[in-house]
Amino acid sequence: MSIRPSAGYSITIRLEIKNEVGMLGRVTSAIGGAGGDIGAVDIVSVAPERVTRDFTIKARDEHHGEAVVEALKAVDGVHVASVSDRTFLLHMGGKIEIVGRVPVKTRDDLSMVYTPGVARVSRAIAEHPEQVHTLTIKRNTVGIVTDGSAVLGLGNIGPAAALPVMEGKALLFKALAGLNAFPICLDTQDPDEIVRTVRLIAPVFGGINLEDISAPRCFKVEEGLIDLGIPVMHDDQHGTAVVVRAGLLNAAAVVGKRFEDLRVAVCGAGAAGSAIARLLLCRDAQGQDAPGQDAPGKTCRPVRDLIVCDRGGIIHPARPDLGPAKTDLASWTNREGRRGSLADAMKDADAFIGVSAGGIVSGGMVRSMAGRPIVFALANPDPEIMPDEAEAAGAAVTATGRSDFPNQVNNALAFPGLFKGALDARARRFTPGMFLAASEAIASMIRPDERLPDHIIPSIFDRRVTRAVCRAVAHAAQADGVAARRHRDAATRTGQPHIALWEPDALSREL
Amino acid sequence: MSIRPSAGYSITIRLEIKNEVGMLGRVTSAIGGAGGDIGAVDIVSVAPERVTRDFTIKARDEHHGEAVVEALKAVDGVHVASVSDRTFLLHMGGKIEIVGRVPVKTRDDLSMVYTPGVARVSRAIAEHPEQVHTLTIKRNTVGIVTDGSAVLGLGNIGPAAALPVMEGKALLFKALAGLNAFPICLDTQDPDEIVRTVRLIAPVFGGINLEDISAPRCFKVEEGLIDLGIPVMHDDQHGTAVVVRAGLLNAAAVVGKRFEDLRVAVCGAGAAGSAIARLLLCRDAQGQDAPGQDAPGKTCRPVRDLIVCDRGGIIHPARPDLGPAKTDLASWTNREGRRGSLADAMKDADAFIGVSAGGIVSGGMVRSMAGRPIVFALANPDPEIMPDEAEAAGAAVTATGRSDFPNQVNNALAFPGLFKGALDARARRFTPGMFLAASEAIASMIRPDERLPDHIIPSIFDRRVTRAVCRAVAHAAQADGVAARRHRDAATRTGQPHIALWEPDALSREL
Repeated sequence: MSIRPSAGYSITIRLEIKNEVGMLGRVTSAIGGAGGDIGAVDIVSVAPERVTRDFTIKARDEHHGEAVVEALKAVDGVHVASVSDRTFLLHMGGKIEIVGRVPVKTRDDLSMVYTPGVARVSRAIAEHPEQVHTLTIKRNTVGIVTDGSAVLGLGNIGPAAALPVMEGKALLFKALAGLNAFPICLDTQDPDEIVRTVRLIAPVFGGINLEDISAPRCFKVEEGLIDLGIPVMHDDQHGTAVVVRAGLLNAAAVVGKRFEDLRVAVCGAGAAGSAIARLLLCRDAQGQDAPGQDAPGKTCRPVRDLIVCDRGGIIHPARPDLGPAKTDLASWTNREGRRGSLADAMKDADAFIGVSAGGIVSGGMVRSMAGRPIVFALANPDPEIMPDEAEAAGAAVTATGRSDFPNQVNNALAFPGLFKGALDARARRFTPGMFLAASEAIASMIRPDERLPDHIIPSIFDRRVTRAVCRAVAHAAQADGVAARRHRDAATRTGQPHIALWEPDALSREL
Repeated sequence: MSIRPSAGYSITIRLEIKNEVGMLGRVTSAIGGAGGDIGAVDIVSVAPERVTRDFTIKARDEHHGEAVVEALKAVDGVHVASVSDRTFLLHMGGKIEIVGRVPVKTRDDLSMVYTPGVARVSRAIAEHPEQVHTLTIKRNTVGIVTDGSAVLGLGNIGPAAALPVMEGKALLFKALAGLNAFPICLDTQDPDEIVRTVRLIAPVFGGINLEDISAPRCFKVEEGLIDLGIPVMHDDQHGTAVVVRAGLLNAAAVVGKRFEDLRVAVCGAGAAGSAIARLLLCRDAQGQDAPGQDAPGKTCRPVRDLIVCDRGGIIHPARPDLGPAKTDLASWTNREGRRGSLADAMKDADAFIGVSAGGIVSGGMVRSMAGRPIVFALANPDPEIMPDEAEAAGAAVTATGRSDFPNQVNNALAFPGLFKGALDARARRFTPGMFLAASEAIASMIRPDERLPDHIIPSIFDRRVTRAVCRAVAHAAQADGVAARRHRDAATRTGQPHIALWEPDALSREL
């Protein structure tokens, strides 16, 4: 399978080139010949003998980048002065920073933001604890908590190496939802200790996004924090499930099937797989049916049946090798009690959802599915089956986790709005109803007349998505009785402070 | 004692005033008569009958603010439409925010700051753990850790109510040293649990500033973190001690005494008092003499003698009521073995340093001191003795913790540079030598010919201070053998990333 050159592997090569006619052509040919994709050429300096130029080149990966450099070294009249790497340069010193929202220029400023003025604010919170939501960053700040045990496709690389990913996530929180997010990378992988630590650091945060914690420990951590009083969500579970369900809602419409009639085969019983199973069957974390919502079109609609497979094949109650999490899963999935392999699970299924490993699904397995099958091959970077191969085998709609194919299932469609909605409503926890509402909101971003096989999921650059998710989640929090505040105007709640003026009689009471 | 109106208690009052000649004069008279200090008057709207104006007024405190409002309500033809409070408005939604340092506008951006590009950065750190200092925020990020047990003069108000103070501190870290600082307010006051939690969250931080943790628990917490591998400092101890020593160096020069000949009486044996005793006697936390530095003028110079008093009077080894911390203190202070009250301790002392409670020192006690006595009355907001009273009793130099008198002892002179210097040098811990160097640097900001009784401590708005402290601390870290990096250019290290270009052959090795 071919991977295209991407900006993620972009390098800038500084070349000193002999000042002769035809040299530039030889350089670009060498780059092209090595498969490099030239993005920009900048002149650094011109001398009678030599021209110094910076070539910014997209490569496939580091080895490819090195190969391009080697090809250039072999060109007569060209000297490779230096090579820099845009991705690494971008990361130097970190991707986020903490800045002031108020000036600290004069003594007057200082006397308000710090002593003595701040003492009154602290006293107000000590006397009225709920004011911490108004008078501090708690109102719009999320902690991104990881133990570095399941980072991207890299596995257990530990907390320090996970930090660049968490910083990237913090960037997305800000860019997409205007929320502050700060990385908390924990030097422990003990679930009880993670729970205890999150409880201890919770006073500063309005919500906790658990990230890249491996299964089954992630279930224990999330369960241990359900009563924290602020919304806690493991994004690898629920963020993924929300976007998968949104895509599946639209995919069903595209292939002309009722969502509630779908038979689904899920491959992968880790964090993502079990959360997808839960959301598609409208079960909450305690295995109960999720409460439906009254609004038309938002009532919980479970799919007809859903089978989960892991490395050992179909998960069913008689399997002797199941831990507690999978035993629970077996009790409310696989209604027909099927046994066998992934291939057996896929037979006659309307939809396949892979959150497992690259290349494990064949064209034959897709052909064995029901008519006009839906194939979500979400393993990253290599899908369970490449979309073109699945389509050749009859798949009517395909989706992947990658940005270089249509229908990218990307958590960034969900998590910013999930947290913004939960914080705006000051929800004390996430509910299945909030996840369901979020998935309906994402699906609804594509109007019925816009739905196409390659257009079932909106773009993460569509600014409407986060706003819609936020609104839906805040309303669901109210409907589910977990909101401490009525949601007023999602767009303006967490950005700038709303400058309110108190009535004079309220002065001593409020302040 | 009179407290002056300050911006910390500033309110904005919106008045609808009858449109008649002489009305404005009546309003300003009413404000002045109630003791309010008018800062600004803005016109909101003008109608034939009524003019609406916003009056921004400094008051002494909340009750005074209410009194001003009442006085205005009593004026005929004036309606008080609303009252807002600048300090509270400023705090709404928090004083800091987390923003991106890199763009996230295009898919190319995204592929570098997040998946797939970020995976290479994470892998680089997993393979070369020290690169976390280069490729993440760790290099220039400080955690401000509190348990809310000793916040300002407010006492044990808990972690949530402490948050506005920690946000204010984060603002100062950014404004004065360009460092990122994030508040960690812990929902525990158990020293062992605080130590454990800080260890678990340490991967993200380049340094830890312990803040507003009460004594003697603060000693245990700091001691438990000495081997963390990043610099940890309890600012209430060492930040205060550094600025006090800086002030005392210059005060001694002003009164014409050698610093090494000073006999000092310290009142207060908590966090600040014991750290001041330690630094003035050049003892490190283990009670050993601090290593001197070779540079001329920077060798450790202990004062001649120092007596510490607490509520029970002079601390001496025979007192039966001392805990472990004070027993230790008794073993290396009070060389002459004096006993008695604070008044006894102050007799013939050259300098008094109060970090205790307001109003406990009398003019008579100052008169009993040696000639040209130095009086640092640092209790906040009410000093041990007001400066004018101390001066009337013969004090040659006075200092307080307040901004409305000369010679303010303010930690903000020390902590930004202490951390910036330690992070720039990538120090694995703070040493007494670093604190000594910082105090010398602060003192040196006032040239000998600029020293005056009311000018022994530089202004916190003097931008040179943090730079000088940073440089001195980084060099001391190297001299003391705790620096992992040679300090190059303090001014540019932690602000923008330094754009380096690698040699091509280093590509695969470095990247």
